[in-house]
Amino acid sequence: MDATLEILIASGAKIETEEIEVGEKVYLSGNTAGIAAASWDVIRRNKIFLKAPITTPQGGGYKSLNVTTRKFLGLYSNVRPCMSLHPFVTTKHPIMDVVIIRENEEDLYAGIEHQQTDEVVQCLKLISRPGCEKIVRYAFEYAKQQNRKKVTCFTKDNIMKQTDGLFHQVFDEIAAEYPEIENEHWIIDIGAAKMADTPEAFDVIVMPNLYGDVLSDIAAQITGSVGLAGSANIGEECSMFEAIHGSAPRRAGQNVANPSGLLQGAVMMLNHIGETEAAEKIQNAWLKTLEDGIHTYDIYKEGSSSQKVGTKEFAQAVIANLGHKPAVLKPVSYASNVALNLPKYIKRPAAKKTLVGVDVFVHWNGTNPEIIAESVLKLAKNGLELTMITNRGIKVWPEGFSETFCTDHWRCRFKPANGGEITKHHINELLSSAIDENIDTIKTENLYEFDGTRAYSLGQGQ
Amino acid sequence: MDATLEILIASGAKIETEEIEVGEKVYLSGNTAGIAAASWDVIRRNKIFLKAPITTPQGGGYKSLNVTTRKFLGLYSNVRPCMSLHPFVTTKHPIMDVVIIRENEEDLYAGIEHQQTDEVVQCLKLISRPGCEKIVRYAFEYAKQQNRKKVTCFTKDNIMKQTDGLFHQVFDEIAAEYPEIENEHWIIDIGAAKMADTPEAFDVIVMPNLYGDVLSDIAAQITGSVGLAGSANIGEECSMFEAIHGSAPRRAGQNVANPSGLLQGAVMMLNHIGETEAAEKIQNAWLKTLEDGIHTYDIYKEGSSSQKVGTKEFAQAVIANLGHKPAVLKPVSYASNVALNLPKYIKRPAAKKTLVGVDVFVHWNGTNPEIIAESVLKLAKNGLELTMITNRGIKVWPEGFSETFCTDHWRCRFKPANGGEITKHHINELLSSAIDENIDTIKTENLYEFDGTRAYSLGQGQ
Repeated sequence: MDATLEILIASGAKIETEEIEVGEKVYLSGNTAGIAAASWDVIRRNKIFLKAPITTPQGGGYKSLNVTTRKFLGLYSNVRPCMSLHPFVTTKHPIMDVVIIRENEEDLYAGIEHQQTDEVVQCLKLISRPGCEKIVRYAFEYAKQQNRKKVTCFTKDNIMKQTDGLFHQVFDEIAAEYPEIENEHWIIDIGAAKMADTPEAFDVIVMPNLYGDVLSDIAAQITGSVGLAGSANIGEECSMFEAIHGSAPRRAGQNVANPSGLLQGAVMMLNHIGETEAAEKIQNAWLKTLEDGIHTYDIYKEGSSSQKVGTKEFAQAVIANLGHKPAVLKPVSYASNVALNLPKYIKRPAAKKTLVGVDVFVHWNGTNPEIIAESVLKLAKNGLELTMITNRGIKVWPEGFSETFCTDHWRCRFKPANGGEITKHHINELLSSAIDENIDTIKTENLYEFDGTRAYSLGQGQ
Repeated sequence: MDATLEILIASGAKIETEEIEVGEKVYLSGNTAGIAAASWDVIRRNKIFLKAPITTPQGGGYKSLNVTTRKFLGLYSNVRPCMSLHPFVTTKHPIMDVVIIRENEEDLYAGIEHQQTDEVVQCLKLISRPGCEKIVRYAFEYAKQQNRKKVTCFTKDNIMKQTDGLFHQVFDEIAAEYPEIENEHWIIDIGAAKMADTPEAFDVIVMPNLYGDVLSDIAAQITGSVGLAGSANIGEECSMFEAIHGSAPRRAGQNVANPSGLLQGAVMMLNHIGETEAAEKIQNAWLKTLEDGIHTYDIYKEGSSSQKVGTKEFAQAVIANLGHKPAVLKPVSYASNVALNLPKYIKRPAAKKTLVGVDVFVHWNGTNPEIIAESVLKLAKNGLELTMITNRGIKVWPEGFSETFCTDHWRCRFKPANGGEITKHHINELLSSAIDENIDTIKTENLYEFDGTRAYSLGQGQ
């Protein structure tokens, strides 16, 4: 952080700073969030947060501060430009210039996990329409501002037809508002393979949270080093800027770390607050320094680098280059950046929601579906019928396969018999009967139709 | 399929075949599973299934036949060797030889999705102890059989501490039983970046399902082409073998497709059933054919390839090479393959499970957490108290941030007040009260301790 601040000050950027302590020390003092209440006040007052890499201790219920900050402050958009600096930084992908736009608040990062049986643990993947709309619109607005030609969407909607399907659907809706920008969708597995092999095929890529996490690290790495990329986390009110890489506790305080990641975050910060002149000055000086072959250990290469330097010396070299431009790499110009048009999310009118059944999950330690079916069938009364039992999503009753491996986690689907109706009262009666019958219910998922369309998946093999 | 079968027959493999129709035609005839009941009988009788690439139509509730087959037949292990064939197939990673072992039944591929509010859709990620134990043991047994030196595990357990945490924990447990094989764990984002950039750092990599899906495609692609890799899907009773790539409907029937992916699957099949002699013969003939520069369009390169051929001509060239070995690429020898030691999963004794609370999820269309809290607090009676409300996992009550973006999906956590107890009856009373108070509950998740240890995540920022 010191090296980056020194460069910011030397650039003449009109900023004031306040420093707060977050991360490991705060966690280990017993604060599971990794940040003190007073520090939140500072961030919320200043709105702009430049964050050094920190460590989340593993185990012990510590919550990732990165995730907490993004979500508390509603930082829905994570922006990670990944550009090759060939021939000054070694890369197998010399003509790469990809920007990953990652949804930043939801998906599996909701962090909602439950263990309810001996064998099975669950995490909820949540995808929301506002989450999708905000990030996809951000991607197209960003592409428009930066004169980018194409926005690509990656999802796994051939498997997750509703969650990833929603992301894909919203992408198509919003893409239609930007006819001047090319758009395309790839299934994440093949898309990731293509990006890792031929990144020059992509320009801006927008993705749900988890995919974006993994692919932005790949994209940064294959430019030559994850140490060279910064990231912006943009919200409607506050924003946070950081290096994309995590902390390296073993290297801390040894004057060896490459400050480029955090510096790139700082340049995005300066652009964000309108200090485009200082941002441009720093970015060009940084490119010139890399071009000069002044490299920290992580990118130093005998022959092509000219000097191996520590953190402080690298920062001094960038400062000395302020006002200079690179000769081979393309100098940047931020003067004409226009603001993004990002209206606040407006809630849509509610659809007609109809309860049409319930999935009741049962903890049972046996393995034969016929036996649990016999027991659970006792709950099928008051106009409800048991329509199927699945184990890890695969139908095991009726007409299951003996080859199917069964855990102790059984999902039992109940629906109204003979085209009848179901109410919340039916569900409560069902759960009461389960207590009487000694059936260990552990969770429920109501089944709905929205405007007459089924809004839950079928069982695998149903 | 025809080209591959022709090679199998020419190799002298002692196999008999029965052909069944699966996939697109079956789906479009109205069968959402993509396979007829009679076809299942054939597969279960023969136990061994060589499957051509098929297409799952998007939308309309069609279930992926690939996923269904893997799960119905309990095919828990997906094995994908990804080896560079440098200099005969162009690659940026000439010394790559990685095997991805992917858990094949659970994770988000359980396919359990529910939409319960206007804005939010959910998919369940399920990770089980037997699922983890089986796949991790398979990876170490495979490494041992193939004289591999290292098994690496990728998870995201810094965020998903319980689900991915379980996978990592089981990996550590089982790795200890194989002291002669090196083991290591990487967080998936950095691990994927490393693998995409420097695959020679890895040997065997074992992963949960989704990560394995994406990373095995990356690994195959960066060897030069996804068209060159086959995969085995191994269960306790049945097994399925296939190409790792999907179908390419636009290229079907044009005699242009590269049959290598399916052929590689077939070679794994022959090895699996003990036809190691035929397997070795085909594999060496295939390597020799690639070495001869006889290439289909997907890997053909002016200069390094000698001949651009169609599917049939490629198969004929492989057949002509049966009995020959490659000169530059390393010939294979399967004669000394020993069987894997894969005991059936044995259930562990149940832990002491204690109900300690419940998460009740509510659909509410407002945005101010204080207002929903006021309403939901009415349910906090009979010895229960409301301890927090989260939105997409982030705590919004008590003491939320006005900056936090809220969807219409609220998780309300209830626990016994004053150190009291909670029973299933309390939960039912709570749900009944919700009906009376017009609070739209959409799902529940019970909170448990196992042997006194908390088995659910805290809220983000709690």
